Amino acid sequence: MSDDAYERGMEVRREVLGDEHVDKAIGSTTELTADFQSFITRYAWGEIWARPGLDRKTRSCITLTALVALNRQEELEMHVRAALRNGLTPDEIREVLLHCAVYCGVPAANAAFAIAKRVLEDDS
Amino acid sequence: MSDDAYERGMEVRREVLGDEHVDKAIGSTTELTADFQSFITRYAWGEIWARPGLDRKTRSCITLTALVALNRQEELEMHVRAALRNGLTPDEIREVLLHCAVYCGVPAANAAFAIAKRVLEDDS
Amino acid sequence: MSDDAYERGMEVRREVLGDEHVDKAIGSTTELTADFQSFITRYAWGEIWARPGLDRKTRSCITLTALVALNRQEELEMHVRAALRNGLTPDEIREVLLHCAVYCGVPAANAAFAIAKRVLEDDS
Amino acid sequence: MSDDAYERGMEVRREVLGDEHVDKAIGSTTELTADFQSFITRYAWGEIWARPGLDRKTRSCITLTALVALNRQEELEMHVRAALRNGLTPDEIREVLLHCAVYCGVPAANAAFAIAKRVLEDDS
Amino acid sequence: MSDDAYERGMEVRREVLGDEHVDKAIGSTTELTADFQSFITRYAWGEIWARPGLDRKTRSCITLTALVALNRQEELEMHVRAALRNGLTPDEIREVLLHCAVYCGVPAANAAFAIAKRVLEDDS
Amino acid sequence: MSDDAYERGMEVRREVLGDEHVDKAIGSTTELTADFQSFITRYAWGEIWARPGLDRKTRSCITLTALVALNRQEELEMHVRAALRNGLTPDEIREVLLHCAVYCGVPAANAAFAIAKRVLEDDS
Repeated sequence: MSDDAYERGMEVRREVLGDEHVDKAIGSTTELTADFQSFITRYAWGEIWARPGLDRKTRSCITLTALVALNRQEELEMHVRAALRNGLTPDEIREVLLHCAVYCGVPAANAAFAIAKRVLEDDS
Repeated sequence: MSDDAYERGMEVRREVLGDEHVDKAIGSTTELTADFQSFITRYAWGEIWARPGLDRKTRSCITLTALVALNRQEELEMHVRAALRNGLTPDEIREVLLHCAVYCGVPAANAAFAIAKRVLEDDS
Repeated sequence: MSDDAYERGMEVRREVLGDEHVDKAIGSTTELTADFQSFITRYAWGEIWARPGLDRKTRSCITLTALVALNRQEELEMHVRAALRNGLTPDEIREVLLHCAVYCGVPAANAAFAIAKRVLEDDS
Repeated sequence: MSDDAYERGMEVRREVLGDEHVDKAIGSTTELTADFQSFITRYAWGEIWARPGLDRKTRSCITLTALVALNRQEELEMHVRAALRNGLTPDEIREVLLHCAVYCGVPAANAAFAIAKRVLEDDS
Repeated sequence: MSDDAYERGMEVRREVLGDEHVDKAIGSTTELTADFQSFITRYAWGEIWARPGLDRKTRSCITLTALVALNRQEELEMHVRAALRNGLTPDEIREVLLHCAVYCGVPAANAAFAIAKRVLEDDS
Repeated sequence: MSDDAYERGMEVRREVLGDEHVDKAIGSTTELTADFQSFITRYAWGEIWARPGLDRKTRSCITLTALVALNRQEELEMHVRAALRNGLTPDEIREVLLHCAVYCGVPAANAAFAIAKRVLEDDS
């Protein structure tokens, strides 16, 4: 039924997260996680990230903010890398996190800066 | 000490939230809330919103996302209006909320769509 | 593409939330909310609620808990009604909320009991 | 079994929240909420609020902060009143909320100031 | 006063979390944590988990959901083990987490699947 | 413009967090984090912690509570140390966490006790 959504989702997911990350996620899929992997590929990536209404830089800003607000630190690390891939500069990532300090509180931003520092220094 | 931050903050705050909203906030300031009003004008508006590193449309996307994630509904209503003022179209606001559905959960997006619908139908 | 998910989702959604509620949600759909309505029908209802791996009483317990933990009060009201429709007794709903008091904190449970009281007294 | 905790809890609860509030809570207890009412009287009030290790002013500061952070607005209103009863001045309540602005974010403090303003102006 | 609650609580706690876990928790109790250990044994376990109104499989579903929603990862690991002990199958745990993806957001479910994968692969 | 706030903030920050911690934070500042470091020194420390309206012991109680409620564990560790420096005894820290158990839920307090135990046993 939703083969199109899966294929489109996998394509967008690879563009945003990188082949290495996606290959690893798929390679470690088990019976426990297979339906979830299919579900997020089709819905998060094939339905939402694939929509044309916002560019990917803006979608990265939204994603980073949600992860800072919700305190999802592993996922935040992955999406700092994705943000670079989507064209955000380190300076723009800094601006997103500073903006989050006001809305989500200083500890949320502090934890996010620690993660971003680790990722951006590894990558530069 | 920080008169510059206050003046710059008040200017940005008026541009983003509108004179009517800001005049009302200032007019209802009391001894209890005066220091907080000064603090947010300098801190949120004079320091962060005033920074040149991201355009205001992007700052609105970030702000909306934080408010959806943190379930701050009154503030979300105010910032849907601010988003329009900052140049986001209703279609772009819809995209922000759809993106939030994936990251913050469906109930968060559902509540946000109800608020956005009320604001955008009143304003159009 | 995913007509099956939509039809299956609409069927489950009607069974769980009731025709009156769903008719009202669909009747008030606008350009702003149409894609979100389609998305949740396919995604939340057609994909997840439709899965056979847990009975609907258990899915209602999970849903109520998530809404209590996440402080989504309008949605909680709707899902207290849905829980009755799915076969939970008022006594079982009380047990879910008591259990939540320990894990989510007393204020979360207190707000939830106020909502459940209103719904269950209206319905009995 | 735990009659002592119940009696001690009811005494502390009345001192902190006031007879009027507690009489109303007890008077509106139903089969749905009776066990929860007993539970919070013994657990929150008889066990924790009754402990001698912190004075009640400090316990009010802690309680207000938790409610601001967790976005529990009805309960916050009740505990602004309780804070006055426990001896916090409006100026001290303002300080708690300003401190929360930094740690919980500006929207959390903004909503809390709106509630405190309503309560403190009604009561003065 | 509440010796009964303590004994009943310790019995239920051992049945749900296992002797090894509980022995370790008790063995590492210090002056700092003794009252908290007593408190949770009597209230969380002796009062709430001990109630007959919901079976333990359902209580595990509720507990897992609360921990996913609240992002309490260490505790989630412990309660995935407890869920197995309470009779949930890995397939049912998967269903709980998929259901949470919709209500709590995809990152919450993603972190939870990583934890569940680790626990369920260690245990099988 | 805000040199005074920066200097006052740095002084308070050093008194509360200790020279060793602050020297390390400053020494590891990079282009990415410099503006955030300046921002929190001036606002969190120079504006809020420096206010005379609450003593530092009370500000530590508020800070600990916010961090428990918001699940910010690294920051909580730092502020358990700061609480000792501000004059809270281990017994008072225990009381804060017990109080949080009721309002923020048992898992929040459980994680916080694990952190406090580690810090307080290292320090005694």
